[in-house]
Amino acid sequence: MKRYERFAEEISELIRSGVLAPGERVPSVRQASRHYAISPSTVFQAYYLMEKQGLIVSRPRSGYFVREQAQQFLNEPEMTQGHPETADIAVSELVFSVLGSLQNVDTVPFGSAFPSPELFPLPRLARSMAKGLRELSPNAIITDMTAGDTALRRQIALRYRLAGVHLPPQELVITNGAMEALNLGFQCVTEPGDLVAIESPAFYASLQVLERLKLRAVEIPVHPREGIDLDKLADSLAKYPIKACWLMSHLQNPLGASLSTAKKQALYGLLKQHQVPLIEDDVYAELYFGSKPPVPVKHFDDEGLVIHCGSFSKCLAPGYRVGWVAGGRYAESISRLKLMTTISPSVPAQVAIADYLQHGGYDRHLRKLRLALEFQQTRMLSAAARYFPKDTRATRPAGGYFLWFEFPKPVDSLRLFQIALAQGISIAPGPIFSATQGYQNCARLSYGHPWTPRSEEAMAFLGEQLRAMLASC
Amino acid sequence: MKRYERFAEEISELIRSGVLAPGERVPSVRQASRHYAISPSTVFQAYYLMEKQGLIVSRPRSGYFVREQAQQFLNEPEMTQGHPETADIAVSELVFSVLGSLQNVDTVPFGSAFPSPELFPLPRLARSMAKGLRELSPNAIITDMTAGDTALRRQIALRYRLAGVHLPPQELVITNGAMEALNLGFQCVTEPGDLVAIESPAFYASLQVLERLKLRAVEIPVHPREGIDLDKLADSLAKYPIKACWLMSHLQNPLGASLSTAKKQALYGLLKQHQVPLIEDDVYAELYFGSKPPVPVKHFDDEGLVIHCGSFSKCLAPGYRVGWVAGGRYAESISRLKLMTTISPSVPAQVAIADYLQHGGYDRHLRKLRLALEFQQTRMLSAAARYFPKDTRATRPAGGYFLWFEFPKPVDSLRLFQIALAQGISIAPGPIFSATQGYQNCARLSYGHPWTPRSEEAMAFLGEQLRAMLASC
Repeated sequence: MKRYERFAEEISELIRSGVLAPGERVPSVRQASRHYAISPSTVFQAYYLMEKQGLIVSRPRSGYFVREQAQQFLNEPEMTQGHPETADIAVSELVFSVLGSLQNVDTVPFGSAFPSPELFPLPRLARSMAKGLRELSPNAIITDMTAGDTALRRQIALRYRLAGVHLPPQELVITNGAMEALNLGFQCVTEPGDLVAIESPAFYASLQVLERLKLRAVEIPVHPREGIDLDKLADSLAKYPIKACWLMSHLQNPLGASLSTAKKQALYGLLKQHQVPLIEDDVYAELYFGSKPPVPVKHFDDEGLVIHCGSFSKCLAPGYRVGWVAGGRYAESISRLKLMTTISPSVPAQVAIADYLQHGGYDRHLRKLRLALEFQQTRMLSAAARYFPKDTRATRPAGGYFLWFEFPKPVDSLRLFQIALAQGISIAPGPIFSATQGYQNCARLSYGHPWTPRSEEAMAFLGEQLRAMLASC
Repeated sequence: MKRYERFAEEISELIRSGVLAPGERVPSVRQASRHYAISPSTVFQAYYLMEKQGLIVSRPRSGYFVREQAQQFLNEPEMTQGHPETADIAVSELVFSVLGSLQNVDTVPFGSAFPSPELFPLPRLARSMAKGLRELSPNAIITDMTAGDTALRRQIALRYRLAGVHLPPQELVITNGAMEALNLGFQCVTEPGDLVAIESPAFYASLQVLERLKLRAVEIPVHPREGIDLDKLADSLAKYPIKACWLMSHLQNPLGASLSTAKKQALYGLLKQHQVPLIEDDVYAELYFGSKPPVPVKHFDDEGLVIHCGSFSKCLAPGYRVGWVAGGRYAESISRLKLMTTISPSVPAQVAIADYLQHGGYDRHLRKLRLALEFQQTRMLSAAARYFPKDTRATRPAGGYFLWFEFPKPVDSLRLFQIALAQGISIAPGPIFSATQGYQNCARLSYGHPWTPRSEEAMAFLGEQLRAMLASC
């Protein structure tokens, strides 16, 4: 990270944490230069960047101020309800019908599950691919299949180390994206009919995995900022024969909630006490705003109970389909199960990513990506505050590219989804995130694409429709 | 195919079919040139090629003769036994322990499941990859995931047409190799506990798929040249509630048997009568010796009952992990199941193969590959005839890269496997090809690697060990 970026990050933290309030003046260039012992031009560069991100505004002859809009956001939703009873899952049909409608690339992609491909270094990756393939010994194209590319596993193990997790590359199984990792993990620790604890709301694809494997779910409530309700989870673990727990401890999809480090440790203690394996879906690990990577629950795993799933699909290389799983005590059975189902992910994709991680400037790319997403989040939050009914609630996650909206109760988000789609706007309606098809009045909107006048118009259109729905009640 | 290759093929067919017997003179250059209306140099080129393939020998001042060894082979095995009762499958442990020992690249690779990587146009594919990625629109890297690369699906549909199968590209689902295709197919037409008809012996990985999905098997006998015993299959279909049939109608692994076109049609009629879906594993489709592609059972499928699985892993791009399934009436459920398990194969691998199929000279590569394999087959067959006990039986398949050996009964192929491995030679022992761990005295040997003095020594060593085993009885 360059000096001006580090400084911009420090001031941004002050704004995010509320130390610098909206409308307040940020340190003048002279003050900052003296106080932080950096050149005035470094300060200018930093403020220019923050202005682009929409965090501060310059007023001629007065200096830089925290942008008013930066805090004029909608209120946060309350803790979710969950579903304390056990439930069969029947959401796949709905999910497929919604996803099927999202294929048209011409829509405003608020419903998309991926950030914009423009945000990824695809040409640079293609160069890494060419280089990696030139250097690959012909035999490796066959031997790498079973174990996974050695260089890639080493690079992934190094990144774990940065996040405070020490694990041997041998524990890593490279998979066809995180989706295969999740599937393998669940299959290794459950039998059809078993009960699994999940968050509510939860990522629709994981609900589909549970449905496919004929698992039943207890849905645990989630605080939209602080994550899963540990007391409720403890109750359920005591009451039901839960065989596994699936959750996202960081930037939970769709809420964006992240557990604090202390809460992660407490969660691990609870699961260890009941000897319940955790499938930790951590596909947004690299998309944190701020300067430090969060530690995953896996960090505390001294008994190999955590099956930690990661992926490059959301932060580097969508479509390459390279993910991985650090399977703890289940690593060997996961590896065997993979050999019996898909054998291996594509070797060229693996060597491309391995080369890129070593030589391509991954951290530089990630910093740029995080800044772009943070900026786009601000734009969507302020548009929502401008156009949506005032009693709408919205999350404000510290990373990722999703906002979760809770509209006033009479709103039917499936109807909103249909109306929006007819207008060329996609959204992800609430019920696809629930085993029991709750969240009728909620929706997930993605700010993963560069903000354009068309995005602004789309938010205005959604706002109109919401008002119309409320007026007609 | 060039003129001299076509001519060489014609003469080779005459040798294979026995019209030209071992030791007999092939047409002289002058005769051939006149009779086939080609130049003498074309005839020379053809004979030179056939000499390299070991089919003919030149005798100074006398001309070219059919090589004696070309027919001095071991006898063919009898029809296999099968297992008319239903059986649970428990072969995975054995398979894993055998496969685990095969990872060392320094062994003589008779046990390998892949042909030598040297036989594939890997540098040309890497160029196709670079070009494909340059031309790919950034959005396609995301949209291609769900449906599969459009150009690739069109190219595959075109190749089906060459083999006499008309199908819309929409019926094709691109998968992570044929292994995923098989897994998806089985999951769409069976429930755990169901009964499935398979060949005996059968490809070990498909036995692992059945074991994983908790399916039970009826093993049908197979003739080592003519394929599955249709009468026995008819009996089993009448007697048991069989939910699906899995087989390889062409170059069956491990026997190398191929059904005649008439037998394929009869097989389809039988399955249609019982409305039992067929999972047709056709991964060796392109590896036929001779000049015409065989038609698959899928050719006769007027009711969408055949789930036809193919792959580029054995004929073009091992390690790329690109296969496909033409799912007939099950295509939609297969596609959905794929979305719930791995979402998609790697997009770069798909665009690379799509570009290669269109511009890379696939048919030229395949002709070269087939000639190399046919030549290597002759070398292994004649080595076996020289070194193995005379009452050993061996298949002589019309394609692929596997021979199946039936040794005299007292031979224990698992012991042979251990002894050979200690000497740096891998083989695939018979019991891994059977749900009920039969075929103790059999083994599959691959001739997929270029023949070297070390291959010759390895065959001699195996022969010695076989004799020693028989002597000690």
